[in-house]
Amino acid sequence: MTTDTYYANGNEVQLFEQAYHQRLPVMLTGPTGCGKTRLVEHMGALLRRPVVTISCHDDLTSSDLVGRFMVTGGDVVWTDGPLTRAVKAGAICYLDEVVEARHDSLAVLHSLTDHRRTLYLDRAGEVVQAPETFMLVCSYNPAYRSSLKELKPSFRQRFVTLPMAYLPPDREAEVIVAEAGIDLAVARRLVACATAIRTADEAFHFEPPSTRVLVTAAHLVAAGATELDAAEACILAPLSTDGAVTDGLREVAVASLAGADSSSRP
Amino acid sequence: MTTDTYYANGNEVQLFEQAYHQRLPVMLTGPTGCGKTRLVEHMGALLRRPVVTISCHDDLTSSDLVGRFMVTGGDVVWTDGPLTRAVKAGAICYLDEVVEARHDSLAVLHSLTDHRRTLYLDRAGEVVQAPETFMLVCSYNPAYRSSLKELKPSFRQRFVTLPMAYLPPDREAEVIVAEAGIDLAVARRLVACATAIRTADEAFHFEPPSTRVLVTAAHLVAAGATELDAAEACILAPLSTDGAVTDGLREVAVASLAGADSSSRP
Amino acid sequence: MTTDTYYANGNEVQLFEQAYHQRLPVMLTGPTGCGKTRLVEHMGALLRRPVVTISCHDDLTSSDLVGRFMVTGGDVVWTDGPLTRAVKAGAICYLDEVVEARHDSLAVLHSLTDHRRTLYLDRAGEVVQAPETFMLVCSYNPAYRSSLKELKPSFRQRFVTLPMAYLPPDREAEVIVAEAGIDLAVARRLVACATAIRTADEAFHFEPPSTRVLVTAAHLVAAGATELDAAEACILAPLSTDGAVTDGLREVAVASLAGADSSSRP
Amino acid sequence: MTTDTYYANGNEVQLFEQAYHQRLPVMLTGPTGCGKTRLVEHMGALLRRPVVTISCHDDLTSSDLVGRFMVTGGDVVWTDGPLTRAVKAGAICYLDEVVEARHDSLAVLHSLTDHRRTLYLDRAGEVVQAPETFMLVCSYNPAYRSSLKELKPSFRQRFVTLPMAYLPPDREAEVIVAEAGIDLAVARRLVACATAIRTADEAFHFEPPSTRVLVTAAHLVAAGATELDAAEACILAPLSTDGAVTDGLREVAVASLAGADSSSRP
Amino acid sequence: MTTDTYYANGNEVQLFEQAYHQRLPVMLTGPTGCGKTRLVEHMGALLRRPVVTISCHDDLTSSDLVGRFMVTGGDVVWTDGPLTRAVKAGAICYLDEVVEARHDSLAVLHSLTDHRRTLYLDRAGEVVQAPETFMLVCSYNPAYRSSLKELKPSFRQRFVTLPMAYLPPDREAEVIVAEAGIDLAVARRLVACATAIRTADEAFHFEPPSTRVLVTAAHLVAAGATELDAAEACILAPLSTDGAVTDGLREVAVASLAGADSSSRP
Amino acid sequence: MTTDTYYANGNEVQLFEQAYHQRLPVMLTGPTGCGKTRLVEHMGALLRRPVVTISCHDDLTSSDLVGRFMVTGGDVVWTDGPLTRAVKAGAICYLDEVVEARHDSLAVLHSLTDHRRTLYLDRAGEVVQAPETFMLVCSYNPAYRSSLKELKPSFRQRFVTLPMAYLPPDREAEVIVAEAGIDLAVARRLVACATAIRTADEAFHFEPPSTRVLVTAAHLVAAGATELDAAEACILAPLSTDGAVTDGLREVAVASLAGADSSSRP
Repeated sequence: MTTDTYYANGNEVQLFEQAYHQRLPVMLTGPTGCGKTRLVEHMGALLRRPVVTISCHDDLTSSDLVGRFMVTGGDVVWTDGPLTRAVKAGAICYLDEVVEARHDSLAVLHSLTDHRRTLYLDRAGEVVQAPETFMLVCSYNPAYRSSLKELKPSFRQRFVTLPMAYLPPDREAEVIVAEAGIDLAVARRLVACATAIRTADEAFHFEPPSTRVLVTAAHLVAAGATELDAAEACILAPLSTDGAVTDGLREVAVASLAGADSSSRP
Repeated sequence: MTTDTYYANGNEVQLFEQAYHQRLPVMLTGPTGCGKTRLVEHMGALLRRPVVTISCHDDLTSSDLVGRFMVTGGDVVWTDGPLTRAVKAGAICYLDEVVEARHDSLAVLHSLTDHRRTLYLDRAGEVVQAPETFMLVCSYNPAYRSSLKELKPSFRQRFVTLPMAYLPPDREAEVIVAEAGIDLAVARRLVACATAIRTADEAFHFEPPSTRVLVTAAHLVAAGATELDAAEACILAPLSTDGAVTDGLREVAVASLAGADSSSRP
Repeated sequence: MTTDTYYANGNEVQLFEQAYHQRLPVMLTGPTGCGKTRLVEHMGALLRRPVVTISCHDDLTSSDLVGRFMVTGGDVVWTDGPLTRAVKAGAICYLDEVVEARHDSLAVLHSLTDHRRTLYLDRAGEVVQAPETFMLVCSYNPAYRSSLKELKPSFRQRFVTLPMAYLPPDREAEVIVAEAGIDLAVARRLVACATAIRTADEAFHFEPPSTRVLVTAAHLVAAGATELDAAEACILAPLSTDGAVTDGLREVAVASLAGADSSSRP
Repeated sequence: MTTDTYYANGNEVQLFEQAYHQRLPVMLTGPTGCGKTRLVEHMGALLRRPVVTISCHDDLTSSDLVGRFMVTGGDVVWTDGPLTRAVKAGAICYLDEVVEARHDSLAVLHSLTDHRRTLYLDRAGEVVQAPETFMLVCSYNPAYRSSLKELKPSFRQRFVTLPMAYLPPDREAEVIVAEAGIDLAVARRLVACATAIRTADEAFHFEPPSTRVLVTAAHLVAAGATELDAAEACILAPLSTDGAVTDGLREVAVASLAGADSSSRP
Repeated sequence: MTTDTYYANGNEVQLFEQAYHQRLPVMLTGPTGCGKTRLVEHMGALLRRPVVTISCHDDLTSSDLVGRFMVTGGDVVWTDGPLTRAVKAGAICYLDEVVEARHDSLAVLHSLTDHRRTLYLDRAGEVVQAPETFMLVCSYNPAYRSSLKELKPSFRQRFVTLPMAYLPPDREAEVIVAEAGIDLAVARRLVACATAIRTADEAFHFEPPSTRVLVTAAHLVAAGATELDAAEACILAPLSTDGAVTDGLREVAVASLAGADSSSRP
Repeated sequence: MTTDTYYANGNEVQLFEQAYHQRLPVMLTGPTGCGKTRLVEHMGALLRRPVVTISCHDDLTSSDLVGRFMVTGGDVVWTDGPLTRAVKAGAICYLDEVVEARHDSLAVLHSLTDHRRTLYLDRAGEVVQAPETFMLVCSYNPAYRSSLKELKPSFRQRFVTLPMAYLPPDREAEVIVAEAGIDLAVARRLVACATAIRTADEAFHFEPPSTRVLVTAAHLVAAGATELDAAEACILAPLSTDGAVTDGLREVAVASLAGADSSSRP
C-alpha cells in the first residue's frame, strides 16, 4: 500500500501551510476515511516536520498528554508525554478524533492555542514555550450523529477549521487504482456501488462507506474474491446488522455493480 | 472432545485467507456458539500462525492490551501486553466479543487496522511496525439485542466483515455425532428440538440454543442421562427462568423429541 | 448443626455427577436457602474433590478471581487467586450468587467453560490447562425479581443447568428435626406456618421464607423461645418492615401454628 | 452521662441471649435513638464478650471489614480488619446501620451467617472458623423512608430479627431523669412535647424525635436553658428547615409543654 | 479587617456555651454570610479552645478526617487527620458546610456525637476517647435550595441546632461601619439596597446578598469606587448572569441607593 | 503577536486595582475571547505581581491546586501545588474557566476569599497566611448556556465581580490592525462580518465569533489567504457543523464582506 500519497480535494493544502506559517492551530473536520490523517502526514512531509499522532479516547488523561512522574531506581522522575515531546521537538502534534477525549484533558491545550503558545506542566512545575515550528492539529467527524459528545464552541474557535469531504467519483476511482492495483473498470464499479449506498444511506442514517472501504474491497478483489463478495464483506456488512436493511442495501449494490462497465468482471 | 475440527458453512475460509494475504483485519459476526472461535483456531492452524486470544470485557483497559510498567527489583520496567506480544510475534490476535470492550481501549487498534499497521505504545515511547504475518481478528454477536453497546460505524469499516450463521440441520447433526460420539438418530432428535425452539423463539426474543448446547446435551446423553433430562438441563433451562415460558418451551421440546426417529431412545 | 447432610429433591445428584464425568460446568438455580450450597458441599464429598467457594459481589474483579501481582521483598510476584488455585488443584470451584458479579469479571470463565477448559492469565502471561477433575459450578436465584442484573443468555448456555426447589412439607419437617433436634410436631407447625406464608406471599411479592429460616426458628425454640416468638423473629420479621403487611402475615402465622398438631407446644 | 444502663422494652434481651447460645446472628431494627446500640453494649456486658463496633457507610469496602495487605519494612504483610479481629477474638461484632453498606461488602458475611460460621479471606488465602463465642449483630432503621437502599431479602433471612421501638412515655421520662438528672416534671413535659410531635409527624413524614434528643434537651435545661429554648434547639430545629413546618411544630411544642405539670418550670 | 469581632443576634452565644459545658455537639444553620464561621471563632476565643476548621466537600474522605497510613523512610506510619488531631487536643472541631460532605465520611462522627464521645480509627486499630474540652460543631445553609443533598434526619438529631439569621438593618449598618471604616450614611444606603433586593429576591429564588457582600462593597467604596459601581460589582453581579434579571435588580438598587440619606455620596 | 497590549472597555482596570488594594478577590465574567485572560496579564504587569495561571477542568483535584505528597529518595515529601506557590509568593493566582472545576476542589478557596485570607493544607498539617500582595482572580463565561454546571451563589458572593464584553466595532478593528498588521479596511470588513453573524446568531443560539477569531482570520489574510477563505476557516466553520446553518451564515458573511469598504481586497 502506498502510504505517502495524498489526493487533494480543494485548497486545504494551501490553508494548512498558511496557518503553519502564522503559527495557528488547525482543526480538520469531515467523514470517516475522507483523508484527514493522510493530509496531516502529507503536510508533515511537505513542511519537513515530524508528526506525533495521538488517538483520542474517553480515557485519555492530561497526564497521558503532558507526562507524569514515574519511579526509577527508587526515585520519582518526570517523564514527558507525547504532547510535551512534540512541543519540545517543534513537531506537528496530531490529535486524532479529538471529540472523543475528555474535556478536562483538552484544557491543557488552551495555552498552546492562543497567543501564549505555552504548555504549563503544573505537576512538574515547568513552563514550556513552543518553538516556531510547533503546530497543533486536531480532527473529528461532525457527521457522526450518534456521538453524545460535542466540542465546546470556545474550543472550536481556537482553530483554523478546514472542512474536508469525499473525492468526486472519478478522482476516487483513480485513487483506488493507485492504491490497490486493480483495473479502472472494477474501481469504477466499486465507486458506483458506494455512491449508490451513500445516496440511499440518507434514509438510513448510517455512516456512509468511505474511500478506505473501497480500497479494502479492491484489495480483496486483487486477492481473488468476486466483486460481490468483496462488496458484501467490505462495504455492506459493516453498515448494519439488521437483516432487512442489509437486504435492501444488497439490492442497491448488485444493481450498481451491474449497471456500470462490466468488462473486467472476474 | 475434538478441538481442532472446523465445519465450514460458506466461503468464510477463503475470504479469511484472502484478507490474511492482503494484510487486512477481519471481523466475525454471528450468534453465540455458531463457530467463530473455532474458525479462528482453524485458520491459525491452516496459516501456521499462533493465535493469541483476548476475551473482551467492560474493564479491559488499553494497558491490558498493550502493556504496562511494572516494578521489578525496585525499578519500573515495561511489560508487553498480549496485543503487543501478538504484533511482535506476527501472530493472529483474536479479540473475542469486542463489543464488550470499552471504546477507549479500542482506540489503540486504529493505527493497526489502516495502512499504517503500526502499534503506538505512547506510555513506553515505542512504535512497533507489524510484520507481514500479523493479523487482527475481532468477533461479536450482533443478534444479542439487549446489549446497550454498539461498535462505532467508523470502527466497523476498518474490517473485512464475515457474517456467520448456524449450520443446516443435517450438518449440525453430523457435528454432534463427531463431537459427542452418540447415535445419529439421537443427534437428529436434539437438532429437531433446537430447530423447533429456534423457530418458536422468535416470539420470545430469547437467545436461541446454539450448536454448543446441543453438543453439551449429547455429552450428558452419552453419560447416561435421558434425552429429555439432557434437553431440559442444557437446552431449555438456560433459555429462561420464567416458569410459564419454560413450560411452553418444554411442550415444544417433548413434541419435537418424540416426532423424530426414536429408534435409539434409551 | 450437622454440616454434611444433603437432602435430595430430584435427580440433581445424578445429573451433577454425569456433568462432572463429562467435564461440563454446572449452573444451580433456585430460591434462597433451598440447598444449593449444600448440594455443592455434598457433591465435593461424594466425588472426593475439594470445594473452593467464592461469594460473588459487585466489587469482585477478575484479579480477585485469577490473581494479581504483589510486592514481596521489593519485587513484584504473581499470586494465584482462588479460581486459579482451584483450576491447578483440580478442585470444584463454586461461584455463589454469580449474578451479582460484574460481567467483566465473568469473561475469564469463558475459556474454562467451552472445549478449551483453559484459564488465560493475561497479566501473568500464563496459560493453565484445567485437569480432568476440575469442575466449575455457579449458582443464582432467578426468583429474586428486584435484581437489576441478568446473566447474559450466551453465558447461561455454557452450563448444564439444574433448577432446584424447596422440599415437600413432610421432607422439610424431617430436615428441621434432623438439624435442630426438636419434636416433629413443632417442626410440622413451623413448616405449616412457612407454607401458609409462601402461598400468601404471592400477593406480596416478597422473597418467601426458606428452609434455612425454619431451622433457625427451630433452634430458638430448642433454646427456650415460644413458637410464636421464634416464628416472629425468624420467619415474619425478615419478610417486611411495613407494619400493615407484617400484621397480616402474623395472623396467617398464628392461625397456621394453631391449626396444626399442638401436642408439644411449650 | 451513664453509659452502661439499658432500659428493656420487651423480651429482646431474652431472645438475644437465646440466639447467642444457638450461635445465630441477630438483626436489630427500629427508629433512630430507640436504644439499638445500647442493647448491644448491654448484651456484651451481660454475656461477658467484647463488642467490636463498625459504623457502616457507602464507602466501606470488604477490605475495611476483613483486612488488607500493607507495606511494612519494604514487605507486604496482611493486617486483619475489625471483622476478622472480632471473629478471631470470639467477640460480638456489631455492624451499625448495615443498610448503608455497599452490598458487595456484605457478601463476606454470608459464610459467617449460615451453618459454616466461617470467614474466607480470599486475598490472604486464609480460612477462619468462628469460635463458639463469636456473634454477629447488625442494625438498621427501616422507618427511614427516604433511603434508596434496601437489604436483600435473602440477606435479612440470615438473621434472627428483633424489632425495637420507643419506650412508653412513663418509662421514657424515667430514663431522661436517670440520664440528665432533671426533675421528673420537666422530663414529663419534654416527653409530652415529643409525643405530640411524633403523632403530628405522621402527616409530615419526618423522622420523629428520639429518646436521645429528649435526653439532650434535658441536659441543656440542666445547664440553665429554658425548656422552650432547649426544645427548640434539640427537638424542633433538627426536624425540618422549612419555616412553615417549623412554625406549626412550635405551636404543638408550646401547647404540650404548657399542658403538662408546670411546677418546676424555671 | 477586624477578624475577632462577633455581632450577636439572639441567645446563640449562651446556648453554644451551655452545649459546650454539657459536652453536646452543635449544628449551626442559616444563610450564607450570616456569621456562622465568626460565631465559632468567637466561641473558641471565649471558651479558650483552639478551633480546627475543615471545609467539607464532595471529595472529603473519612481518611481526610481521621488520618491515613503514609510511607516514611520505607515504612508505613499512621498520620492523624485534622479531626483526630482536634479530638486529641480537646479542641473545637468545625465542619463548615457539612451538607457538602459525602455521607459515608460523616459516619465516623456517630460515635463522637452520642454518649460514647469516642473516635474509632478502624484502619489504625486505635480507639480515642474525647477529652471533656473537645467539641464538635457543624454548619450548613438550609436555604440553599438547589442543593441535591440533604443531611439524614438521624444525623441532624445528634446535634443541638442553633438557627442563625441576618442582623436587623441598623445593627447590620453598624457592622459595616466597624468593618470597613466608611460613613454610617453610606453603610445605611448599602443596607437599604440589600434589603430591597432581599425582598425582591423572593420572586427570583436567588441566594440573597449577605452581610459579607455589603462589607466588600463598603471596602471598594473606601478605596474610591462610587457607591453604584461598588453595589454593581459586589451586590448585583454575583446574583445572576441573566441580563433581564440584572437590569430589574439594578433599578431596585439605584432606587434604594437614591432613596436613602445621600449626604456622603462621593 | 503583541502579547502585552490590553484594550480597556470600561472601568474594569480601576475596579480591579481597587479590589487589589483592599485585598479582595475578583471574578471576571464574559464571552469567550473578550479579553479576560489579557486583563489579568495586564494587571499583573501594572501591579508588578507575577501571575500564576491554572486552567480549570473536571478533573482538577484540590491536590492539583494545593499540592501533594510525593516519593523522593524512598521518602514521602510534600510538594506545593500552583495555588500554594502563588499564595506563598504573594502572586496573582488566576483560575481560568473556574466553572469547569469540580466544586469540591473549590472548597479550598473559601478561607482564602474571606477575612481569613488563609490556606489550610489539611493533608500537610500546614496553615499558610496569604501576604498582602496575594490576589485571587477567577473567570468564567456565563453566556455559555449548554454548560451543565453552575457556580454556587455563595461562592459567587465571595468575589468582586467585573462583567466584561466585546469592544465596540471601531475599537475592535483597531485591535485587529494592531495585532495582525493588516489594512484597516480589511479589519473593518472582518468586524462587519462578525457583527452581522453576532446579530444573526441570536436566532441560532451558537457562541458568537470572538475578537480572537477575527485576529486569527486577519493573520491568514496577512499570509495570503483571501478574505472569504479566511472568514470561512476562522469565523464560519467553527460555528456549526450543520450544513444548512453554515450556508445561511455564509450568505451573511459574503454580504457583509462585500457591503463594507473593499479598497484593499486582495
